[in-house]
Amino acid sequence: MPREQSKSESGEAFPNSKKVYVSGELFKDVRVPFREISLQHTQSSNNGRFEANEALRVYDTSGPWGDDSESCDVKTGLSPLRRDWILARDDVEAYDGREIQPQDDGYLTKGHEALARKREKEKGGLERFAGSRPKPLRAKGGQPVTQMYYAKRGIVTPEMEFIAIRENLGREKAFEAISGDYQTRNLLNHQHPGESFGSFIPRHITPEFVRDEVAQGRAIIPANINHPESEPMIIGRNFLVKINANIGNSAVASSIEEEVEKMRWATKWGADTVMDLSTGKNIHETREWILRNSSVPIGTVPIYQALEKVGGKAEELTWDIYRDTLIEQAEQGVDYFTIHAGVRLPYIPLTAHRSCGIVSRGGSIMAKWCLSHHQESFLYTHFREICEIMKTYDISFSLGDGLRPGAIADANDEAQIAELKTLGELTQIAWEEDCQVMIEGPGHIPMHLIKENMDLELKHCYDAPFYTLGPLTTDIAPGYDHITSAIGAAMIGWFGCAMLCYVTPKEHLGLPNKQDVKEGVIAYKVAAHAADLAKGHPGAQERDNVLSKARFEFRWEDQFNLSLDPETARAYHDETLPQDAAKKVHFCSMCGPHFCSMKITEDVRQYAKEQGVTEQKALELGMAEKSTEFKRAGSEVYGDG
Amino acid sequence: MPREQSKSESGEAFPNSKKVYVSGELFKDVRVPFREISLQHTQSSNNGRFEANEALRVYDTSGPWGDDSESCDVKTGLSPLRRDWILARDDVEAYDGREIQPQDDGYLTKGHEALARKREKEKGGLERFAGSRPKPLRAKGGQPVTQMYYAKRGIVTPEMEFIAIRENLGREKAFEAISGDYQTRNLLNHQHPGESFGSFIPRHITPEFVRDEVAQGRAIIPANINHPESEPMIIGRNFLVKINANIGNSAVASSIEEEVEKMRWATKWGADTVMDLSTGKNIHETREWILRNSSVPIGTVPIYQALEKVGGKAEELTWDIYRDTLIEQAEQGVDYFTIHAGVRLPYIPLTAHRSCGIVSRGGSIMAKWCLSHHQESFLYTHFREICEIMKTYDISFSLGDGLRPGAIADANDEAQIAELKTLGELTQIAWEEDCQVMIEGPGHIPMHLIKENMDLELKHCYDAPFYTLGPLTTDIAPGYDHITSAIGAAMIGWFGCAMLCYVTPKEHLGLPNKQDVKEGVIAYKVAAHAADLAKGHPGAQERDNVLSKARFEFRWEDQFNLSLDPETARAYHDETLPQDAAKKVHFCSMCGPHFCSMKITEDVRQYAKEQGVTEQKALELGMAEKSTEFKRAGSEVYGDG
Repeated sequence: MPREQSKSESGEAFPNSKKVYVSGELFKDVRVPFREISLQHTQSSNNGRFEANEALRVYDTSGPWGDDSESCDVKTGLSPLRRDWILARDDVEAYDGREIQPQDDGYLTKGHEALARKREKEKGGLERFAGSRPKPLRAKGGQPVTQMYYAKRGIVTPEMEFIAIRENLGREKAFEAISGDYQTRNLLNHQHPGESFGSFIPRHITPEFVRDEVAQGRAIIPANINHPESEPMIIGRNFLVKINANIGNSAVASSIEEEVEKMRWATKWGADTVMDLSTGKNIHETREWILRNSSVPIGTVPIYQALEKVGGKAEELTWDIYRDTLIEQAEQGVDYFTIHAGVRLPYIPLTAHRSCGIVSRGGSIMAKWCLSHHQESFLYTHFREICEIMKTYDISFSLGDGLRPGAIADANDEAQIAELKTLGELTQIAWEEDCQVMIEGPGHIPMHLIKENMDLELKHCYDAPFYTLGPLTTDIAPGYDHITSAIGAAMIGWFGCAMLCYVTPKEHLGLPNKQDVKEGVIAYKVAAHAADLAKGHPGAQERDNVLSKARFEFRWEDQFNLSLDPETARAYHDETLPQDAAKKVHFCSMCGPHFCSMKITEDVRQYAKEQGVTEQKALELGMAEKSTEFKRAGSEVYGDG
Repeated sequence: MPREQSKSESGEAFPNSKKVYVSGELFKDVRVPFREISLQHTQSSNNGRFEANEALRVYDTSGPWGDDSESCDVKTGLSPLRRDWILARDDVEAYDGREIQPQDDGYLTKGHEALARKREKEKGGLERFAGSRPKPLRAKGGQPVTQMYYAKRGIVTPEMEFIAIRENLGREKAFEAISGDYQTRNLLNHQHPGESFGSFIPRHITPEFVRDEVAQGRAIIPANINHPESEPMIIGRNFLVKINANIGNSAVASSIEEEVEKMRWATKWGADTVMDLSTGKNIHETREWILRNSSVPIGTVPIYQALEKVGGKAEELTWDIYRDTLIEQAEQGVDYFTIHAGVRLPYIPLTAHRSCGIVSRGGSIMAKWCLSHHQESFLYTHFREICEIMKTYDISFSLGDGLRPGAIADANDEAQIAELKTLGELTQIAWEEDCQVMIEGPGHIPMHLIKENMDLELKHCYDAPFYTLGPLTTDIAPGYDHITSAIGAAMIGWFGCAMLCYVTPKEHLGLPNKQDVKEGVIAYKVAAHAADLAKGHPGAQERDNVLSKARFEFRWEDQFNLSLDPETARAYHDETLPQDAAKKVHFCSMCGPHFCSMKITEDVRQYAKEQGVTEQKALELGMAEKSTEFKRAGSEVYGDG
């Protein structure tokens, strides 16, 4: 059903929350933001005394928005957080850059563009981005400026220290000191915390660990030197699982303003990166607005814009048009490019017998081009030239899975695996060029084939980070594909997938609106967090524990505030018990005052105390009784019929 | 956010759907209902010809409602489908039954009750159920009347044949003939279809297979002889994964009418059983309305009503009051009882150090009783007497997990496992008495401990069916626990869990309304179906394939109608493209007319045909080219820098 739109705005702060910053030690101007959620006191049911509950720090992707000390204005964009770090490396130069063409925004001539913009202005619509547009930077002297290049040479960058602090959730100490009993139990009974399948997450992330993971290609830091507004983050399986939100206007609907707001909205709820998948008019201008206002890395699929430049006719695409589009987007600051260079001509017939053929837009464009020309894909034949561009700006590859399955029936088939192997070949080439790489994955996979998918990716792509769309675990629930895919996403995250591309409830049906973006992001925060718990990420369980303690102690406000979506948690509670007083009572609407299991448990503990039975004694007593009184009870049960 | 309520009513039929029936061969009055979804023709993009698409039959839990040939009236209840089968066995007798007490509905005296009912009537509220109330039936001559008793003696009952037809989705042939290529591929590359972990699902279910699974305790058929309105269904890991929806009024809110409507609503969307967890006043009367109108088995937790009879004071519970409540509910026709007989006194102290103590209502009531009296649980000490009652009416045990973890931090701990072992002991006793048993499971479990949970259940409880609440895979998302738990539910279903108890978005926050019930049911249909696919259930993938084909062919109406929730799928589509014409066009709102990957794939196929390249030839061509032209292309890529 169409749902009521969320009432909150992207600029609105979370309740009882404030921004806090943790400073770097290696680099003094590294200041890593967290959201700190302050909590109520616990009132002991025993002696009525209050005990303080420490505020909880959580990972924060929302950027400087909402920090009172920063003046943020969408019209002028964010401050260039990383610019000094980039310039301090003394390996880049500013240059005039490519001239912006009317075709970049989908217009035939400057005249057409001027007319269209005039009309838009009259309708009160599209404005051009008014903030400063400094000259683009590029590597000078032919030397790469990628984080991988630095990492391979043993250099720790400010970006790496920023990430280390961020992944430790701002804790100075290793996580074992914080996490407590449950970790010991998991350690004893099950598996080493932090070690799960191919992952090994240390109890404390150091900048050197970040560097080494990047050097080995197991993780990437998407960080175009022309997107200095971004806050560094890392995508790799030995780190927190990340999520991506897709936005973008289309030929059919939506405006720039809406897309910028969707980007801010997505990062408010926790998107770690955002892909701008705009098509139609004003692609360049939309992207400018998004990049200048985004504190998370931005990804694109450049073939979409290239296709617009040839009027939507795939067969008219050329390497020159594509290359020009890469430069255009590189100079704007796009942090990673999806490039479907694995859709090779010989693989295309492998899709002919499929239930759903080729469902990737990029994949089908390239397939059409290849068949039209009877030629190998220009993305494949020009791959080293693409690497040249990527390393000049530090744009990460997101090697696209153009032949991913679009239905359960097509999962893990020959076409998909053939392309995956090619992506592995290309990964090796990119690494030779010191380019950062992640690998895109499906799509639609039944649960029993998910692990195989992850394993094949690690094998064929040499441990490069995996970045999957879901996967959806069934095709039968359009309208609920955020759920069909959250199941698959959580599982593949556990198995080692580094980033999960969200799926909204509108998947297969329509363009996501703000509410859909939020529902997609939250479903994927759930999936990523469930994966972090299962991977044994040392710090992941802290939020669960703090929230469950609040729940158990009937600290309703804290339970709301600690949740992924305080607004919804509170609204659901209030549907049944709207009164303010109901947030202070020691029962809930599910059972009523006389019937609450949590209350009874409190009574049980209280009772045990009143009887002078300490918990330890009760334990011993129970054990002793097991062998005497309860044997008798047992024999009663078993003795008679 | 509070969502808009679904506009449809529980009586409204699904679009393009009709009831069809498949008759039994062993028993001529066995008529198994299915919903048949008729489909549009496919228009070939090649020659424009139309090809018919066969209607799809799906499992149907909605009962006779919506069948035009049945006159259904909530006020008089459903016809007693199974009554003749039960009487034909000649092993039951009608008797006067227990007199209904004012206390059954929470009133002190008949005077109080009369006054309350008068007031209700004046407000236009509660009516007493007006349908016929025939005398209750019970086993005669001390012989059990359970499906397990018959099964162990080699008897195939009409219930068993009904179930065999139902589980085959009405197909007369084995599923391999229908399922096609994907199964062959799964078979070759991955695993035997129908075999996954401990499960083995035959390609065609026979009544004898149903009988044998029940005889061995691996499956149950909840079917109280006093609930003849129910359509037989089976819960076991070698069958389709089932889901349960909880409803029930509480001391705080909701009325009988609402609960009956919620029951019908839940079964409309696919609930296989419904548990009535009502508390407060009018528990007996609510249950009467629900049972007389329910075509799915109804479960209850009798201790809830027993507690009401002692004014909510757990320590005042007695075996006599509890026993009397069992008889009361047995005579009404409850099909399974949750009985927390594993909460033994010596285990209670094991929960003292937990993060969230005891969160099961039944568990905490029994814990309080045990500690108050310093005695072993009367459910445990009187277990054989309970079996006597169960086998007199064929009520199945759902052995409750009163010590289930209520937080990630408490998962798979000593208290939970101690109780589980006791449930295994009790299972053996129940089986000696020919009673049917399933085992309830948690709750809150991180993903990496789910498989262990399932394995321990099968081990300690001798393959009795498992019935879990979720499990929730993280605690941090109140408001989204249908999603946190659908992840765990899908996984444990794959691992062998037989029935999944749904969790609604309101879990931990409030009482579910109709919209919450629907969202919970759909999330769990997704989880159960994803599990059936992963288990390799031979018929499960058919719906995915038919829906994906419709999607690929832009048969929008069919895509909506084949989905779990046609209403929502259509509404989401219409948010972006509301015009009727948009449901006939060969593109969608995501990409617009020039940019649709599915359209391009069609073009690719078409192009290949126009070139005279058959798909098979294209395949060969591709392979040939691989070793000639593309070696060259490859060497270009690798050769230069």
